[in-house]
Amino acid sequence: MDHEFVGIDWGTSSFRLWVMDRTGAVVAEQCGPHGMGSLRPQDYAPLLERTLSDLGLPATAPVVIAGMAGAAQGWCEAPYRDISEAGRDPASGAVRMDGPRPVWILPGLKQSSPANVMRGEETQISGFLALRPGHNGVLCLPGTHSKWVRLQDGAISNFQTAMTGEVFALIANKSVLRFSVSTEGTDMAAFDAGVRQALDEPRGIAMRLFSLRAEGLLGDLNPVSAGSRLSGMLIGTEIAAVAASLDDIPVGLIGAAGLTALYRRALALTGHEGQCHDAGALTRAGLRAAFRALDRSCAA
Amino acid sequence: MDHEFVGIDWGTSSFRLWVMDRTGAVVAEQCGPHGMGSLRPQDYAPLLERTLSDLGLPATAPVVIAGMAGAAQGWCEAPYRDISEAGRDPASGAVRMDGPRPVWILPGLKQSSPANVMRGEETQISGFLALRPGHNGVLCLPGTHSKWVRLQDGAISNFQTAMTGEVFALIANKSVLRFSVSTEGTDMAAFDAGVRQALDEPRGIAMRLFSLRAEGLLGDLNPVSAGSRLSGMLIGTEIAAVAASLDDIPVGLIGAAGLTALYRRALALTGHEGQCHDAGALTRAGLRAAFRALDRSCAA
Repeated sequence: MDHEFVGIDWGTSSFRLWVMDRTGAVVAEQCGPHGMGSLRPQDYAPLLERTLSDLGLPATAPVVIAGMAGAAQGWCEAPYRDISEAGRDPASGAVRMDGPRPVWILPGLKQSSPANVMRGEETQISGFLALRPGHNGVLCLPGTHSKWVRLQDGAISNFQTAMTGEVFALIANKSVLRFSVSTEGTDMAAFDAGVRQALDEPRGIAMRLFSLRAEGLLGDLNPVSAGSRLSGMLIGTEIAAVAASLDDIPVGLIGAAGLTALYRRALALTGHEGQCHDAGALTRAGLRAAFRALDRSCAA
Repeated sequence: MDHEFVGIDWGTSSFRLWVMDRTGAVVAEQCGPHGMGSLRPQDYAPLLERTLSDLGLPATAPVVIAGMAGAAQGWCEAPYRDISEAGRDPASGAVRMDGPRPVWILPGLKQSSPANVMRGEETQISGFLALRPGHNGVLCLPGTHSKWVRLQDGAISNFQTAMTGEVFALIANKSVLRFSVSTEGTDMAAFDAGVRQALDEPRGIAMRLFSLRAEGLLGDLNPVSAGSRLSGMLIGTEIAAVAASLDDIPVGLIGAAGLTALYRRALALTGHEGQCHDAGALTRAGLRAAFRALDRSCAA
């Protein structure tokens, strides 16, 4: 198989692996259900070697890994770099594993004040920047823990984290609202209504959640509409927190297609444009940028 | 045993039962771990009879029940009364159970617009009003689902629900913050800091939760302080939603002693006074007011 290197996004509950050739094209792809949550440190190397051998790759093919494999509870800790030191080098702080195969684990990023961390998103961001060197603007990476990232002259100047995805899942699946809310399907009008409520009166969020239950009991609010309004309320509350600090240029949205479309819709209600990007492509671009930098420094 | 009637607060996870004499004094008390969540409709009557017989009460002793026993999933549904119809009669809408013993289940209350419901709290409120007929002001009943109730001329004019207690428990015990947060103990300075953050910038709640994790990872935020700040953030967000509508007279706080003390402290940071009341005593007063009304209407 024609290959330059193997890039992996190794998360909490799964991994995605791409074999890329010298042009950056994907020549093979693999994913699996094993992530940090279900692996001990000693499990990673055999799993990786088995996967690469199944793909027919030689023992010399280099590997670059981003994500939770580098967490303290992962394969081998790649300590957070501070954004003030990280600069524009997508590979600084990478940890080279012992063994015959070149395997690097990329570090996460931290911000000292106010305290914040990311692990995995930094690779998507460096992928974004690899294609747009020197970019200025704001990126939003929606997910379990959404990141809002301010880019200045092609580097991260600061970032914030919103736990919106996790809070949504907890409320929709574990709270008393689980009887009133379905997450199967989206009612766009109900989503918009939730966003508007949050934007019009952001301090009212505490009082609005239970309305979904009460309107289901007493009115005719159906579970899909209730789930969509809940999603709108929470995404709207998140966007209300950042809307005033956004510029007039589009916000770059990086994440799953359905979710970034919801964020773009919510942003539009604040008068801001969102531009959706393919998260997988940016992850691969970031892994490739890191590999190129590592390869250069090894050759030097 | 000298008794006038038996009052029960029958909730989702447990029940509390009081035998009261003609002066309202408690002559016996019982509690148990059986609530709506673990009982089928046919389980309530035998459990009640066994408990009353263990206490040596005759088969004629009347019983008044408030709480989830009257929910659709409880013993027997006592449909919600609308606050506009409920007026000042604490017993209207009570459901009399079949059988030789007089057993009544009190209904919950609903509000049509905006839709809202309560079940159990209405009895504490009628206990509060039995002692202060014609009262005007605001009551807050903190708990899993906190209620904020506006009283006008001794009746409920409207109410709101905040899911603060449930959201706190989900985030503290089930989210990624569970690694950073302890709920054993309270750091009052951290609680105050959380309240102040919420009051100063209520729209920032979405971005502040994750700071508890990041400051635990990167800084020296200890789990008890993190849990207290989380509590302050959420209670502060709830109070920020209502603070502007509060009068200059004290807010009546009804609930568990530790929790009402936290709400009083948070209210004080908005310049409002809170006055804590004993929830058990008000529940008994409400059950007694309902029993008296039912007894009068039976005698008439």
